[in-house]
Parts: sequence; structure tokens; C-alpha cells
Amino acid sequence: MLQKPLSSYPEIAEQFIPQIDAALDARTATEDGCPARLREAIRYSLLAPGKRLRPILVLLAAEACQGNAEAAMPGACAVEMVHAYSLIHDDLPAMDDDDLRRGRPTCHKAFGEATAILAGDALLTLAFEVLAKEVQPAETAAACCAALAEAAGAANMVGGQAADLDTAGGDGRRQDGPSSLAVLESIHHRKTGAMIRVSLRLGGLVAGAELAQLAALDAFGRRVGLCFQITDDLLDVQSSQVAMGKRVGKDAQHGKLTFPSLLGVDRSIQYARRLTAEACQDVAFFGARAEGLCKLAWYVVERSR
Amino acid sequence: MLQKPLSSYPEIAEQFIPQIDAALDARTATEDGCPARLREAIRYSLLAPGKRLRPILVLLAAEACQGNAEAAMPGACAVEMVHAYSLIHDDLPAMDDDDLRRGRPTCHKAFGEATAILAGDALLTLAFEVLAKEVQPAETAAACCAALAEAAGAANMVGGQAADLDTAGGDGRRQDGPSSLAVLESIHHRKTGAMIRVSLRLGGLVAGAELAQLAALDAFGRRVGLCFQITDDLLDVQSSQVAMGKRVGKDAQHGKLTFPSLLGVDRSIQYARRLTAEACQDVAFFGARAEGLCKLAWYVVERSR
Repeated sequence: MLQKPLSSYPEIAEQFIPQIDAALDARTATEDGCPARLREAIRYSLLAPGKRLRPILVLLAAEACQGNAEAAMPGACAVEMVHAYSLIHDDLPAMDDDDLRRGRPTCHKAFGEATAILAGDALLTLAFEVLAKEVQPAETAAACCAALAEAAGAANMVGGQAADLDTAGGDGRRQDGPSSLAVLESIHHRKTGAMIRVSLRLGGLVAGAELAQLAALDAFGRRVGLCFQITDDLLDVQSSQVAMGKRVGKDAQHGKLTFPSLLGVDRSIQYARRLTAEACQDVAFFGARAEGLCKLAWYVVERSR
Repeated sequence: MLQKPLSSYPEIAEQFIPQIDAALDARTATEDGCPARLREAIRYSLLAPGKRLRPILVLLAAEACQGNAEAAMPGACAVEMVHAYSLIHDDLPAMDDDDLRRGRPTCHKAFGEATAILAGDALLTLAFEVLAKEVQPAETAAACCAALAEAAGAANMVGGQAADLDTAGGDGRRQDGPSSLAVLESIHHRKTGAMIRVSLRLGGLVAGAELAQLAALDAFGRRVGLCFQITDDLLDVQSSQVAMGKRVGKDAQHGKLTFPSLLGVDRSIQYARRLTAEACQDVAFFGARAEGLCKLAWYVVERSR
């Protein structure tokens, strides 16, 4: 689809995944007041095999700003917890009504709707608990909580999901031209882009980044977030169900506004690649320390799932 | 039912309600990326007339510790946001399946399930945003976020709701004797008690309370939280639908473990009153500054809805 051969997930990312998974495991393994079935649902979704894109962005951003991975790990866990919660709730029958996620039954299919709703609620809450308790100093912890809440809340991720549900089957769909592209980009900047940007921001904050560094990370994240969504849309059109591990082609079935439906497949690919090249320019002044971020950005447009 | 004439809501509380409602209104009124329908659902639930018990506890606890209401208001808003979110999600068809709340259609009845799920998610997130951005100094903001997350999360509120769903229709119901009372109290300490206790804690934290003060507030909150649930159970048995503004008698229909089913009505009333008297002793060393807390505690057992 993307003309170049599909690259493997960058080695730098694959080094981080076991560390991230161990950190997520440790933060959900202990015995406390959590009923066993709820804990099982939380861990089923959170620890499901995945790309761990957002936590890796936290760690790579910290690295770019000369921070260390250990101090960035609470931020990495928090963004993955918010991501896992958003998938659980988005998959619910009242929302996108998906039965499969990452090749396995979705949380509500495996544990029932009530437990799935509560597992999502618990993961969102735990993300803030981890940041508030583990990030040092307290000023940085408060800044991280504020940034994550802003990105995950009604103005961004949750609002984007609501707006996306509104366009599916609503009046905004399948209009051509720049206003539809603006609508589409606005939804995705909120729905997926804000969490990608805040991942980079948390990495910068825990590394004590300066304003110019945070701004560069943000510009990078803005472009990479959009690329991520464009590629998701392309994969929905073109991939097989086996590769994606979920039902595909359903955006079109549902009449959702997508980049390929608006720009066509070829122009969508070109657009994503141009954005990626620009994103790498955004972080050029970090020099060699931005290498991981650039590799990841290229992976985002070349991935097969 | 409670033999004494029902007291009106303490005047001290009624003074606070307009301030609290104005603060909640201000924090959800502004234009940003939030779609209009989602905002409407958030405000429909958050600003619905209510007792505002939890935010009032924040303000009274701050007062007891010689803090001021203005500094405590972000904490007050945060606990009411978490409370409103928990009601929205608990009312969903997959959970308690309620059509009425405070005499009005529940959020999902008024706005649909998808919007209701998202409105709950947004309110939970906003609670942390308000604490993280508004509480000063940053160390206190981080401590408040940590305390709220712990109370609202899998170990407490969300875990208690999951455990409660497990007992309804499960094996634990309708057993007599101390082990069932222990199970019931354990569920309610988590499901309702933890949020009442953290309300008092946030008030103490923003007032710069010492450890002994925080411990006294916690002991008070533990007893008041339990009283609140006992009285809720009693009202479910005895009140009319009009007074409660929601379907009543459904605990018994659903076979849920309740205090009156376990102890009988009279012993439940006696138990709640004893706890209230003890709660007032817990905060006796605050002297006259604890007057509001004690009035509220007696209101909790004597309320009619």
C-alpha cells in the first residue's frame, strides 16, 4: 500500500516495550480493595500486546531532552492507561460496538459491559494516581496531571470522540473540499492527536525541558498525530482483518468521514509522508537525541497495523 | 421513619450551595473544543439540583482547619464532578439501569448512552484538571490529585461499585450474621465512604491541616459515610417515589445486601445514630469550628431523601 517495504517496529521501541510492560504490570498487580474480576478486566486490556506508541513517545521525548527513562516511566504508564481506557469505552456497544481489539475479544465481550465500563473508569483514575504519586518534584507532578487532563478531557480526546460519533451518520459526512478537511483534522487533532502530543509533553516535563524544547515536541506531535490517523484510515480501507486484528472497512460502512474518502488513497499517502518529513524537521535541533523520535514517526506512516 | 422530626438541610449548607453551583457553572461554561451536546449532558448532570453533600464537606473541613472557602472551592468542585460522573455511569443500562435521578430522566435517557458514557468520562477528567490547575501550592495540588484518585479508583469507589454489582444476585446476599455485615460495610466504605472521606481530606489539605487534624476528619468521615449508606438503604425501603425522585424498593427487588435486610429497620436506625454521635466526638477537638460538620452529620441520618 505504502510503496516502500513496511519497516519493522524500530529497534529502539522494541527495547522499551518490555520495560513498559513490566511497569504497567507492577502498577496493577498488587492486592488491595479491587475485586478480582475488575482487576482481571483492567489487566486484560492494559497488558494486551500492543505497539505502546504513546508510552514510547514519553520515553523518547524525555531522552531527546536529556532526561532518563526511569523518571519518565510514570508518565509512560499514565498515557498507556488513558489509551487503554479510551479503547475499552470506545468499543462499547453504545459507542463503536466492536467485538475484536488487537485480535482478541474486546473487554465488554470478555467481561460484560458493566465490568468494562468500570475497568475503563478505573484505568483513567489510575493514570492520575500514578502521575500524582510518582512524578517528582510535586510541581512537575501537578503540571503532568494538568496536561494529561486537558488532553484526555472534553476539550480534546473525549470531545473528539463525541464529535466523531456526531459526524458518523451526521450531516458533516462525505462533503468534499477544504471545510471537510478542516473538520476532519479538527476531530483528529482532538481525538487522537492530543494524547500523542501530551505523551511528548510529559516526557519533556519530567526531563525539565525548556519552553523551546516543549514547543518543538508539540509541533512534532501535532504532525505525527495526524499521520497516525491518516494511516489508520488507510489501513481500514486496505488491510485484511487478520493484519488489523479487528473488523475493517467499517468506517466506510458507517459513512464516517476519513482521509482516503476525502483526499483519495494516493494523496492521503503523500500528505502523511510530507507531514512526517516536516515532523522530523521540527525536532532537528535535538540533533542525534531525536533519532528515536524520527524513526518512530516514519514507522507510524509505514506500519501495517 | 426516624422518630425525630426531619430536620431541614442545615442553614450553613444552604449558604454554600449557591457558591458551589456558581463555581461548577463557571468551570463548565466556557467555549472550547467540547461539542455542544456533550457540554449540555455534562452540565445537565453536574448542575442538577442536589444536596452537594461532598463539596460542602470539603468547605466545612477547610473551615474546621481554619482554611478559607475560596481556596477550598477547586476541591469542592472536583468531588462533585466525580460524584456526578459516578451517578451517570451507575445509572447506565449495563449497570443499575435507572431511568430517573433526582426526579429527572437520567443522563443516558436524556442524551443517549454514548453521550452519557462520554459525559461521565469528561467529568472524571475535569475533576483532576481543576485540582491540578487551581490548587496552590503545587505540592498540595499533587497531594489532592493523589488522594482523589485513590478514593475514586479501583481500590475504593469503582471497586466498591464492582463488588456491589457482584453481590446483587450473587452468593453473598441475604446471609445473616457478622460476616455479612462486614462484607456490607466493606463494600460501602469503598463505594460511598471513600468519596466522603476524601472530601474531608481535600478540605483539610487545602487548609494546610496537621496530621492529627487529617486523622480526626478521616475518622469523622468514616462514620458519616457509613451513616449515609444506612440512611440510603432505609429510605429505599420506606420512602415514597415522589420524595426520592427515583425508583425505590429496587434494592429488595434485586436481592441486594442492605443494612435493613441484615439488621432490621430499628437496629439500623439505632446504629446510624450511634455512629453519628461518635462522629461528632471525632471532631470535638476542633471546638466551635466543627459545628457545621456536626450539623451536617445529623442531617445525614435525618434527611428524607
